Amino acid sequence: MSASRPPHVVIIGGGFAGLWAARALAKAPVRITLIDRRNHHLFQPLLYQVATAGLSAPDIAAPLRHILRRQANVEVRLAEVTRVDPQSRRLQLGDAGSLGYDYLLLATGATHAYFGHDEWAKHAPGLKTLDDALYLRRHLLVAFERAEAEPDPARRAAWLNFAIVGGGPTGVELAGTLAEIARHTLKNEFRNIDPGEARVRLIEAGPRVLASFPEDLSARARRQLEKLGVEVSTGVPVTAISEAGYQLGDTFVPARTVVWAAGVAASPLAQSLHVPLDRAGRVVVQPDLSVPGYPDIFVGGDLAAVQSQGRPVPGVAPAAKQMGRHIAAMIRARMAGKPTSAFRYRDFGNLATIGRMAAVVHFGRLKLSGLLAWWFWLAAHVFFLIGFRNRLIVLLNWAWAYWSYQRGARIIFGAPDKTSSDQ
Amino acid sequence: MSASRPPHVVIIGGGFAGLWAARALAKAPVRITLIDRRNHHLFQPLLYQVATAGLSAPDIAAPLRHILRRQANVEVRLAEVTRVDPQSRRLQLGDAGSLGYDYLLLATGATHAYFGHDEWAKHAPGLKTLDDALYLRRHLLVAFERAEAEPDPARRAAWLNFAIVGGGPTGVELAGTLAEIARHTLKNEFRNIDPGEARVRLIEAGPRVLASFPEDLSARARRQLEKLGVEVSTGVPVTAISEAGYQLGDTFVPARTVVWAAGVAASPLAQSLHVPLDRAGRVVVQPDLSVPGYPDIFVGGDLAAVQSQGRPVPGVAPAAKQMGRHIAAMIRARMAGKPTSAFRYRDFGNLATIGRMAAVVHFGRLKLSGLLAWWFWLAAHVFFLIGFRNRLIVLLNWAWAYWSYQRGARIIFGAPDKTSSDQ
Repeated sequence: MSASRPPHVVIIGGGFAGLWAARALAKAPVRITLIDRRNHHLFQPLLYQVATAGLSAPDIAAPLRHILRRQANVEVRLAEVTRVDPQSRRLQLGDAGSLGYDYLLLATGATHAYFGHDEWAKHAPGLKTLDDALYLRRHLLVAFERAEAEPDPARRAAWLNFAIVGGGPTGVELAGTLAEIARHTLKNEFRNIDPGEARVRLIEAGPRVLASFPEDLSARARRQLEKLGVEVSTGVPVTAISEAGYQLGDTFVPARTVVWAAGVAASPLAQSLHVPLDRAGRVVVQPDLSVPGYPDIFVGGDLAAVQSQGRPVPGVAPAAKQMGRHIAAMIRARMAGKPTSAFRYRDFGNLATIGRMAAVVHFGRLKLSGLLAWWFWLAAHVFFLIGFRNRLIVLLNWAWAYWSYQRGARIIFGAPDKTSSDQ
Repeated sequence: MSASRPPHVVIIGGGFAGLWAARALAKAPVRITLIDRRNHHLFQPLLYQVATAGLSAPDIAAPLRHILRRQANVEVRLAEVTRVDPQSRRLQLGDAGSLGYDYLLLATGATHAYFGHDEWAKHAPGLKTLDDALYLRRHLLVAFERAEAEPDPARRAAWLNFAIVGGGPTGVELAGTLAEIARHTLKNEFRNIDPGEARVRLIEAGPRVLASFPEDLSARARRQLEKLGVEVSTGVPVTAISEAGYQLGDTFVPARTVVWAAGVAASPLAQSLHVPLDRAGRVVVQPDLSVPGYPDIFVGGDLAAVQSQGRPVPGVAPAAKQMGRHIAAMIRARMAGKPTSAFRYRDFGNLATIGRMAAVVHFGRLKLSGLLAWWFWLAAHVFFLIGFRNRLIVLLNWAWAYWSYQRGARIIFGAPDKTSSDQ
């Protein structure tokens, strides 16, 4: 690096890890370039609400340029990094040139993984981006339309059969909300079907839903799901998915909608580093979150495999934010010639929503479920949303949904011909 | 029609004409089928706000099923009518079968027309549907991103050059809002360009903008546009549009964004009737809005060419609602064996917004412009939005936008690779 210019920190990915790192370097004597394929930071914990038509896409996203407009040492670039060359300290940006760095933060997150069954992807879409959410919303709304227009009872039943694979927080949220939509939101709107007859099944191959929670809270979550009308199936894996349905143990279930909320894999950029990755494709980082052999490259968020106090750090938003801040501190330490320190995850607790007035919360010794947990979840999520406007709009949407059972974003747009196709 | 079943009224199109006709038949002894390709009624007067990232798509749309859920004599079908056979009184629904009717209302509206230059369509998108609006939003936001990343000054200028063809209300609204975005909303967000240097040009081939208003209001609208930073060009037509720019008289202007707000043409379904159409493809209806030779088929909204008090009825929302109600009354008259009557358009006035705090209003002898007209416009539009929730959210969005100059929906999603492509 030249003596006259401040060191160049490049951050790839504007999620929680990348954005929090950029902010934590606001007063550092560095030039920062934040690169993202998309123009927005996404509040992923509420993505399922966009998929289930409770919120509009812009409600849970904010333009990265806008968030960082007052931080003069940051330049935001809308680009895709295709390769990292740690030897020459350069990034390749597709055919849009290359970019050198002094310090690099890789925070490109995770994507779906189908456990070696990539052919399932087109029949069982996942939920990681706004485009995924809008695709899923379209598919769910169209399924009821197709059922309404279908004279054959067996084919109609297949359109009203919804399966969610994966009993983690996203799967639980989707299943609970979908049951609510079928039972309440769509009531009286159809003439040939009763949307309340829709079957919503949550499938978890492991022994219980919400495995990251204590066993008693898992059991309570299951009971709340069943009360909302969700069939919960545990201990049996899905072994095949096609357009016609899915195979669960010995049974083939005809279903036109299967949602994938099971496996995640790290985004593929990490492979260009040629360093050890774990089974999910995440970079096995040093305790200080740097990459083995490359002390100027850090990895944060869902892309990092790291332990804290002997336990793996979970892939949740608070962990990503903490990693982002830690990496900013490590870059400052390096610049000052000081030693780096190990990342220590502060676990503030765990919370998951299930549906209308149902959630589970686990904070230290505190365990809550039901209505109180739901209010807790709501307050925490709205509080952490970026932007005053978004918070107000989201609160208003929720107040409206709560009072009326309605979901304001039930609008089908984008490629109706493709998703409504029978073939 | 059989003696035992009530007559079957089929309405094609859930816009203002179709929806208002369905509602006006709520207590009539008829079975109604409302068919639309989309699942929602769209509040088209605010579509430009979705295109310019001020509102989310669901803010200005409501599911047709939801609007009509309590009206037991209506069935909503999501389908596309491909042909009308007036001899056998049947509709063809693509490959989804056919449907008979006793009375038919055709209200499929208008689409863009490029005056015989269909090759312009891909370089100059129009604005009629939510998909159009989201496409345009993406294109506008990506243009600034491309300018920021472009080192060559001439190419950068072309990305910052915006042209809107057509000086009617849509063109004026788009031009005014785009100038506001460039000058205020994006301020300080870029590091290599000044968005305020963007050129926004409104091109009208006729002698003045807002030609449906009195001349003095047209002149005031032009002054307000120029004050907002819009270059207004009148009296010279665009003669060529390509990806690189457009030809205006003798000058070729390099521009990467041309928006089409000029010609409209009736949707093509009317052709299958084999009755006289006007130059824009609209059905030349009888004074009672029925089709010549087919007294059981009515046409309403933008698809109908009709005169009232010697003047053509304009293609605006209030006219479409009035036609829908008139047609409902005519169907009742027919059923009762009574004579039908001529449609009479009640012109309550004309209003168009220009930008932040600028609008023109013409109500009888009342002529307003500027801030007062803008408040008038705002109140009228929010009042006519369907749904309590939408009104509140839209008001809140506007209050926020007014106070902060911000536009909350500046989120790029959907096919980023295509729209950001240089080629």
